[in-house]
Amino acid sequence: MRIARFSIDGNVGYGAVEGESAPGKEGELVLDIIKGIPYADFELSGTKVPLSKVRLLPPVLPNKIVAFGRNYDEHSAELGNETPDVPFAFLKPSTSLVGSGDAITYPAFSEELHHEAELAVVIGRMCREVPRERVKDVIFGYTCANDVTARDVQRREKQWARAKGFDSSCPLGPWVETDLDLAAANDLTIQCTVNGQQRQLGRTSEMVHSIEDLIVNISEAMTLLPGDVILTGTPAGVGPLNVGDEVAVTIEGIGTLTNKVIKRG
Amino acid sequence: MRIARFSIDGNVGYGAVEGESAPGKEGELVLDIIKGIPYADFELSGTKVPLSKVRLLPPVLPNKIVAFGRNYDEHSAELGNETPDVPFAFLKPSTSLVGSGDAITYPAFSEELHHEAELAVVIGRMCREVPRERVKDVIFGYTCANDVTARDVQRREKQWARAKGFDSSCPLGPWVETDLDLAAANDLTIQCTVNGQQRQLGRTSEMVHSIEDLIVNISEAMTLLPGDVILTGTPAGVGPLNVGDEVAVTIEGIGTLTNKVIKRG
Repeated sequence: MRIARFSIDGNVGYGAVEGESAPGKEGELVLDIIKGIPYADFELSGTKVPLSKVRLLPPVLPNKIVAFGRNYDEHSAELGNETPDVPFAFLKPSTSLVGSGDAITYPAFSEELHHEAELAVVIGRMCREVPRERVKDVIFGYTCANDVTARDVQRREKQWARAKGFDSSCPLGPWVETDLDLAAANDLTIQCTVNGQQRQLGRTSEMVHSIEDLIVNISEAMTLLPGDVILTGTPAGVGPLNVGDEVAVTIEGIGTLTNKVIKRG
Repeated sequence: MRIARFSIDGNVGYGAVEGESAPGKEGELVLDIIKGIPYADFELSGTKVPLSKVRLLPPVLPNKIVAFGRNYDEHSAELGNETPDVPFAFLKPSTSLVGSGDAITYPAFSEELHHEAELAVVIGRMCREVPRERVKDVIFGYTCANDVTARDVQRREKQWARAKGFDSSCPLGPWVETDLDLAAANDLTIQCTVNGQQRQLGRTSEMVHSIEDLIVNISEAMTLLPGDVILTGTPAGVGPLNVGDEVAVTIEGIGTLTNKVIKRG
């Protein structure tokens, strides 16, 4: 099931996305509005709204967003870095979230924004010290993320809260796909285009540390809560975003996350 | 006013702390229970509870905790680092919070926990790109923090989400003091003891980047929300915490944050 969060006429809700999402056919998608909350018991109301009539919101409201760095060798190399033996994590604040269709606002303190297409894992239940064989049980689903980075600020500042945590630096969506199993999620095509031109193309099977590795690693340290989001790293091909660009992250079996870059007004 | 958050018999509330908090006299403190929420309009109910009867909680429920590194020259030097020209920030997750009197649980993935006593600034209103002269208007108050750090993990991992973000790595409290002005907050004695022995002693006037600098810096990048917490860096004297230790952070004009280190059970 594909679960979206949306607003319409000032009301916020969750809905199950129905219909085919082939390129050019998004106009035919429909939301069946959910009664209850997706992480607990819920049912479909049968009340349907065309997706074209709503504003998509970030599909979850995370307590925290944990992101892993340098998890694809070719990406590490393209920035002149080595992939570390053990994963390393950083945090993005929830104020950095925007949904598909929302703007990425170019911040005044950077002159070098980069796109970073990433598979995002959404946590479904409270957990800590998750054993490898239980990782599948704590995952609610998967979505697309863009770990937008102020590359110039990242080079200057030892920790990345500003470079990767500014407002609108975490586009997430368009919805959460709950039907992928863990083996499938570890082998998906991930693509990023800017103005229709391909910039990044990789497979999640190229991740140095698998989804299981990452969740074992972070849950050793901290409790994960329903709705928390884990970004799994970006494949090679990162590059600049300019005002006016439209950037799209597409992940096989999930969908496409699209955002336009605008000037801070 | 000193505003505490507490639980009693399973209920959670805010209260204004009344009475003198001189060492040894904590038993005489009383909470006047607050009607409403402290960031908006509220009044004192007149219903009073002895502080000794409640469990203190972290005094705020932040959307995010922003912490600054290497903001005291002597502390930078003691770890063999240079103080950077511009501040750098990292994030701690809200799952890392505990209140005064709660335990710091020694995590299994570290063998070298360190205390780091810090002045914490609590934000009072939503803000972004705060001009220096308006910083005083966005501050709700001040409290004590312990930026507990897994020093061995910090050395190994390039970003510090695990080293400084594990569960119970952010003791905060005992309450928020709302009556300090910005000039006073930039010149307070800050002290850390372990089992009654002094380990850290500094003044916030030794901060390389003032409270104004830090809030201007972080709000350039991200929106701050009511209840968000800014940790302002630690003075020299950081050192190990062991299971069984009692660590106390005392800041002039605010109070004492006390936590015991326990083994993960």
